[in-house]
Amino acid sequence: MTTKIDITLSETKKEKPNVDQLEFGRVFTDHMFVMDYSATKGWYDPRIVPYGPISLSPSTMAFHYGQTVFEGLKAYRTKDDKVLLFRPNKNIERLNLSNDRLCIPQIDEELVIEALKQLVSIDKEWIPTAEGTSLYIRPFIIPTEYYLGVAPSKHYRFMIILSPVGSYYKEGIHPVKIFVENEYVRAVAGGTGTAKTGGNYASSLKAQDEAEKRGYSQVLWLDGLEKKYVEEVGSMNVFFKINGEVVTPALNGSILEGVTRNSIIHLLKHWGVPVSERRLSMEDLYKAYKEGQLEEAFGTGTAAVISPIGELFYNEERMVINNGETGDISMKLYDTLTGIQTGALEDIFNWVVNVNE
Amino acid sequence: MTTKIDITLSETKKEKPNVDQLEFGRVFTDHMFVMDYSATKGWYDPRIVPYGPISLSPSTMAFHYGQTVFEGLKAYRTKDDKVLLFRPNKNIERLNLSNDRLCIPQIDEELVIEALKQLVSIDKEWIPTAEGTSLYIRPFIIPTEYYLGVAPSKHYRFMIILSPVGSYYKEGIHPVKIFVENEYVRAVAGGTGTAKTGGNYASSLKAQDEAEKRGYSQVLWLDGLEKKYVEEVGSMNVFFKINGEVVTPALNGSILEGVTRNSIIHLLKHWGVPVSERRLSMEDLYKAYKEGQLEEAFGTGTAAVISPIGELFYNEERMVINNGETGDISMKLYDTLTGIQTGALEDIFNWVVNVNE
Ligand SMILES: Cc1ncc(COP(=O)(O)O)c(C=O)c1O
Ligand SMILES: Cc1ncc(COP(=O)(O)O)c(C=O)c1O
Repeated sequence: MTTKIDITLSETKKEKPNVDQLEFGRVFTDHMFVMDYSATKGWYDPRIVPYGPISLSPSTMAFHYGQTVFEGLKAYRTKDDKVLLFRPNKNIERLNLSNDRLCIPQIDEELVIEALKQLVSIDKEWIPTAEGTSLYIRPFIIPTEYYLGVAPSKHYRFMIILSPVGSYYKEGIHPVKIFVENEYVRAVAGGTGTAKTGGNYASSLKAQDEAEKRGYSQVLWLDGLEKKYVEEVGSMNVFFKINGEVVTPALNGSILEGVTRNSIIHLLKHWGVPVSERRLSMEDLYKAYKEGQLEEAFGTGTAAVISPIGELFYNEERMVINNGETGDISMKLYDTLTGIQTGALEDIFNWVVNVNE
Repeated sequence: MTTKIDITLSETKKEKPNVDQLEFGRVFTDHMFVMDYSATKGWYDPRIVPYGPISLSPSTMAFHYGQTVFEGLKAYRTKDDKVLLFRPNKNIERLNLSNDRLCIPQIDEELVIEALKQLVSIDKEWIPTAEGTSLYIRPFIIPTEYYLGVAPSKHYRFMIILSPVGSYYKEGIHPVKIFVENEYVRAVAGGTGTAKTGGNYASSLKAQDEAEKRGYSQVLWLDGLEKKYVEEVGSMNVFFKINGEVVTPALNGSILEGVTRNSIIHLLKHWGVPVSERRLSMEDLYKAYKEGQLEEAFGTGTAAVISPIGELFYNEERMVINNGETGDISMKLYDTLTGIQTGALEDIFNWVVNVNE
């Protein structure tokens, strides 16, 4: 560590929410990490300060041209009061990939990991300990130049905020129904699909909204060119077990490379389960379904870890998968990943980072 | 008018910039228009207040998921001190189209036009009068709910800010060199290309940056599916004069419908110049060029009005158009449109709105 992080502790502590009433992303801890960028100074003034509002001119570029990036990861508090992060280096690497796509200057990954650790340590009391709960960590960057021209901003603010979150599965892990989207497009190669930038999520809202109105909880995105090939599900990567093999769409320039996705591929290989990353058409998936070979389907991401898919609505037809129940591989992946993340299982791949070490 | 706009005038007046030093989008006037939205109240509290910063929680959705929309139009001050807006209803209609795509509640178009007029009247002294100068008007909407979930915000803020701008063409209208983009994609049908939302501009920065490094001032976007068909140029629509006919890409679900584009089509028809909106391939354009039939090319948008294209760089070849000079139709369109906008020419189509009438 060469750059020192300046720390100003909050004089008052907010009341912590009741763990039963925790909703995702509504309540924030006592502190936040902030760092600014200017063309002349580079990233400067890394600091931990009391959580609070920021004041910006209405002409701040953040409000106009969407040049924003973000990340999402979690911290867990173990039975013996250790605080663990899951592969934080992967998220910070991805943040720099997103920065590159969005013309935002690269951040010092080591410094940001150090900031993550210090911030989470300081607000450690906020990490809920009940089964399935965690502390959601949101690093993000916004352009802060006061200028209405369409050009990369010359000033940025990097922030990390923390939010205690309840269990994603209040009544145990259970499958969701997914609408196969055939009108709206999430991303195409040459666009911003491989980056975690606001515009990708903004453009998904309408499809999500229409799927919900039809009673589906998320959409399955197809490729934007031919609307034939499977890409992602909602804001998760997607896997299918077809005739004993686990298949996920290959990284093709429009899919976000999930940390969970990457971890699952490692785990499956380690277990000797056949796994392949390849182009997968909806037509082939439907054929496998008709032939009784579509054995499981699930989304993967930081929020839910594993989200089993019980039904796909495709071409006006309901494709019910594994009787609408959670499959064995889905369950085993969920138990293993959450076990490693919370320190209950052995960390065979060295994925877990203890914030006090 | 049923809803009244509340007005609080600024107690101090800022110093106005020297008209020779005006840069686009850097300096703002003394007042702004603000209106808020909540699910229970709808849009409420429309008000004109002193221009100043806004304070937002770091968890404000505007910083995370890009659910933003904006518009851009201009006000002109005539020799006899009238203040004119150019087709403001078109911009406000388009804002509602953008709102629809981004799941933002519709605004009352009449109220917003009224707000535009009142705000511009109050800050009328800020409108420069020198040739080619104007007041740039930026209406925009940001999501203001404090929430990290990917869902439409339940709160919004609508704002209008004003910026005096200098002449786009300091040394007279002159052609630019354009790089035909074959890697990055602006938008595809099913995406957000028809809306004025931040993500479209964020995703364009990288292509723009790379074009500039090669000495080109903007990129010509091709369709995202086959990268064959012409779409837009930078953040302008694009027209070509081919063998006497003026051609512009048809609205296909990924192109923004420019107010300038629409006005030009009207003018050309009125003049009896053949004009067609159709799919136009780069291959056909190149063929016309080789056969000496590509007579003019120009971009169109609020900022530059007409931006003649002197050169296209395509397939490692420089296509020089009209000897790199401004063509007759480009010049006539520029003179006519700016003439109507500034009140110097007769407003034959009833496009101009006097803010005091
Ligand atoms: C679009 C998209 N795809 C996939 C993922 C899954 O990524 P990860 O496993 O890193 O959370 C996310 C969520 O982060 C996402 O936003
Ligand atoms: C992407 C894009 N295309 C075209 C235009 C031209 O539209 P208008 O003529 O309404 O300014 C703009 C600018 O507003 C734009 O941002």
